[in-house]
Amino acid sequence: MTEARIRLHVDHPLAAGQSVSLTREQAHYLFNVMRLGPGARVLLINSRDGEWLAEVLEAGKRAGRLAVLEQTRPLQPPPDLWLLFAPIKKARTDFIVEKAAEMGAARILPVQTEFTNAERIRRDRLQAHAVEAIEQCGGTYVPPVEELQPLDRLLAGWTPERRIMFADESLVGARAALEGAAPGPWAILIGPEGGFSPAERARLRSLDFVVPVSLGPRILRADTAAVAAMTVWQMTLGDWR
Amino acid sequence: MTEARIRLHVDHPLAAGQSVSLTREQAHYLFNVMRLGPGARVLLINSRDGEWLAEVLEAGKRAGRLAVLEQTRPLQPPPDLWLLFAPIKKARTDFIVEKAAEMGAARILPVQTEFTNAERIRRDRLQAHAVEAIEQCGGTYVPPVEELQPLDRLLAGWTPERRIMFADESLVGARAALEGAAPGPWAILIGPEGGFSPAERARLRSLDFVVPVSLGPRILRADTAAVAAMTVWQMTLGDWR
Repeated sequence: MTEARIRLHVDHPLAAGQSVSLTREQAHYLFNVMRLGPGARVLLINSRDGEWLAEVLEAGKRAGRLAVLEQTRPLQPPPDLWLLFAPIKKARTDFIVEKAAEMGAARILPVQTEFTNAERIRRDRLQAHAVEAIEQCGGTYVPPVEELQPLDRLLAGWTPERRIMFADESLVGARAALEGAAPGPWAILIGPEGGFSPAERARLRSLDFVVPVSLGPRILRADTAAVAAMTVWQMTLGDWR
Repeated sequence: MTEARIRLHVDHPLAAGQSVSLTREQAHYLFNVMRLGPGARVLLINSRDGEWLAEVLEAGKRAGRLAVLEQTRPLQPPPDLWLLFAPIKKARTDFIVEKAAEMGAARILPVQTEFTNAERIRRDRLQAHAVEAIEQCGGTYVPPVEELQPLDRLLAGWTPERRIMFADESLVGARAALEGAAPGPWAILIGPEGGFSPAERARLRSLDFVVPVSLGPRILRADTAAVAAMTVWQMTLGDWR
């Protein structure tokens, strides 16, 4: 009984009989770090075909090849929930991306607000965090992390069918605000540590598709607010119901 | 108009006319780091008397004194919710304590489970994280962080009036499980990264005061699970209602 516990996200179609080449980093991780050799079994995901059991065929220092054996779980895409957040300090930004992936965001969009310090992000590094989070949490779908974009431009081109839950110092409790709402496409918007500017706040409140909610009587840090807001949404409209 | 934005937790009674001596660390923070001088105003909390406006009387490199002026907010103790968690890697343990304070835990109890690696914790350091979190989030009550204790001993002396919400791979959604439950004393128990042992799980499930709940279809890391479980509880039974 070889229990396959290592899960690896690959950019490759998965089907029985497929052979999958590993990247240099993946080969290093499997064969040098985890000390696997030919015959060892791992689980593969690719955000499209579910989870598959695979066996190591060739194990090199910088390369390797796996044979895909059989599907172990179907694709379970998360609900259609996007997370929009203003990047903050590095460790907390990494954390928000990790948590968004774990909590079941379908897409992660860093946004630039008036009080956002970040001028740019390392998209590839954030994407790698999302991949690692999904490999660890047993998910089968890695949410794409988009490039940083200005919030006002994003709102100008927004499709109004996708509502935005926006953590505001509103008096409406998050649960009450979502209670009667329909499922379907949603987004959660989390501001930077300094909050939104008065102009941003006024604009957000004026938009029909924006739902201001309160996240309790204490002020939450952006990273806590992201996890709390996603919990509220998942419990009320998402796949925790 | 001097806007007092710095909030400081002091171990001192707070009332109009009181004079408060600062610790060496507090004096360093206020006068060297934040560059405040005599006449500057700060907000003080002490977990007992609410929040008070105070003015700097003496500012030294290693000491200082403040005059307490007037109460700005009454004490708002969090609901009677304890967080029990198994310490994990350092950064994530710090994070759980910070988040527990922000989310409104009344008491934080590190517990040793069968799969917990930690043999000891730095209680004073964790307590300092809780203080900092409350200073930042606008709370008026810092939850005490207790010493590490074995989970089985804690359960053996447990008062059954306090129910324990326990994140399990149960099929009962967290919200459904809490929906009909009465408020009152509660605790949330979060296991270590490796989960609970089969014996621990069986014991927990056999206890009348333990309520197993599910936190969605993905496996959450311990730190995410702590925030998510507290959100569910606060929304359903706590002060986010």
